[in-house]
Amino acid sequence: SSDDARPPSKVQELHVYEMNERDRGSPAVLRLSQKPTNSLGDLVPFSNKVYSGDLKKRIGITSGICLLIQHKPEMKGDRYEAIYSFYFGDYGHIAVQGPYLTYEDSYLAVTGGSGIFEGVYGQVKLQQLIFPFKLFYTFYLKGIEDLPEELLGAPVPPSPAVEPAAHAKACEPHGAIANFTD
Amino acid sequence: SSDDARPPSKVQELHVYEMNERDRGSPAVLRLSQKPTNSLGDLVPFSNKVYSGDLKKRIGITSGICLLIQHKPEMKGDRYEAIYSFYFGDYGHIAVQGPYLTYEDSYLAVTGGSGIFEGVYGQVKLQQLIFPFKLFYTFYLKGIEDLPEELLGAPVPPSPAVEPAAHAKACEPHGAIANFTD
Amino acid sequence: SSDDARPPSKVQELHVYEMNERDRGSPAVLRLSQKPTNSLGDLVPFSNKVYSGDLKKRIGITSGICLLIQHKPEMKGDRYEAIYSFYFGDYGHIAVQGPYLTYEDSYLAVTGGSGIFEGVYGQVKLQQLIFPFKLFYTFYLKGIEDLPEELLGAPVPPSPAVEPAAHAKACEPHGAIANFTD
Repeated sequence: SSDDARPPSKVQELHVYEMNERDRGSPAVLRLSQKPTNSLGDLVPFSNKVYSGDLKKRIGITSGICLLIQHKPEMKGDRYEAIYSFYFGDYGHIAVQGPYLTYEDSYLAVTGGSGIFEGVYGQVKLQQLIFPFKLFYTFYLKGIEDLPEELLGAPVPPSPAVEPAAHAKACEPHGAIANFTD
Repeated sequence: SSDDARPPSKVQELHVYEMNERDRGSPAVLRLSQKPTNSLGDLVPFSNKVYSGDLKKRIGITSGICLLIQHKPEMKGDRYEAIYSFYFGDYGHIAVQGPYLTYEDSYLAVTGGSGIFEGVYGQVKLQQLIFPFKLFYTFYLKGIEDLPEELLGAPVPPSPAVEPAAHAKACEPHGAIANFTD
Repeated sequence: SSDDARPPSKVQELHVYEMNERDRGSPAVLRLSQKPTNSLGDLVPFSNKVYSGDLKKRIGITSGICLLIQHKPEMKGDRYEAIYSFYFGDYGHIAVQGPYLTYEDSYLAVTGGSGIFEGVYGQVKLQQLIFPFKLFYTFYLKGIEDLPEELLGAPVPPSPAVEPAAHAKACEPHGAIANFTD
């Protein structure tokens, strides 16, 4: 029966921006290592805003934690293990886990999802634009039905200068998805 | 060969209750934000008991952490990111990640499992009955073989008044699955 | 089209050793429970080295956290919930979640991966050889293409005495995979 049909494993690309507008008390840097430099033991819970790749819609938030794994002085940065979710209002959420390196791009695993993302798998590319305030993500998603049009606008090419549209930043009705997560 | 056959993607519903009987030292509320109200940075490791949906069998425990993401005064509650597992004795475990909202139901992602839950995916609905002591879950599971009968009893309709059967609460042999997790 | 073909669900076994050579400042034992014995609330971020099962190649690192769930005096040990990743240099990573019991073997869920492990699912057996410094893992992986030969050498039978080959410990070019994670 159609109940037994798995969604095709075709890849769907989904682009989003994550922006820290410094109005959510995020990140919470917990220096539990009690060491003068960033060290294993430091924990960084965080929650930032998420916009569509075309920067025309406020979508929701990120929510999770970065575990400081290793300070990399030669890279002038740090390795974190990141465990978090992306929230898409009524559409549901995507959970991810993997490396967050402050000095280069990385790929994280997509570990699952809810709503339209139920059964999702694949990976996501993380590109940092302004540390740690502006990031661009390209999801490569499998296992789900076709994504809705409003999430699939042509992405604004990532650069440090990008900003969400004013109506998206203001979360006006035409600048946000239905019941965007806040 | 049959080794190459994927289990069908039909959905199997599985109902369980999670109960905090206040005898496991759970939750451990770590107010690491050092703020007077619940805030990002607070961490809540927890482990509660799990009973079958018919409340006739002790099954195991939950085990994991809730990350406080945001206090929602207008909802008189909080948003958490929850990362935890459900343990089912010799049957194995299910790992989940997603939103725990103290003021409304939510759906979490099923991210994987072990034992009879090896390869599982899908989502789970979380319904809170008494905060934070009694919760009801409906798993929508795919990717696994047919679940054992003893996990599939008709669920007691969720309400704040439900209690496990006395023999289940006492973990008597006929009130628990084999090698239930404790 | 071939884009729509799912990799077969055949199981591929992958063996690795995790070794704490006490040179990474790991683990970071955070006694946040503030109790004299190991208790719920204690957190243990960690990052150790990973070698191929034949102990001839340095592969990368582990990276993640163990949440202390329960002290088990009758077992002279502890139950942890473990959430971490295995890094394989340019090959990518595997994310896992599940039980770490200091007193017996366990199975964790494989929740996802990146690179050659994109789309991976299955489970992994954890065998402790010397607490908490030497562990042996057998991954049972599905959903991915055939693993590269250099990861598939015949594993050295696990025992407390095993050591990586000298050229692997020294991370010499022939003793490490390309761009091994460090």
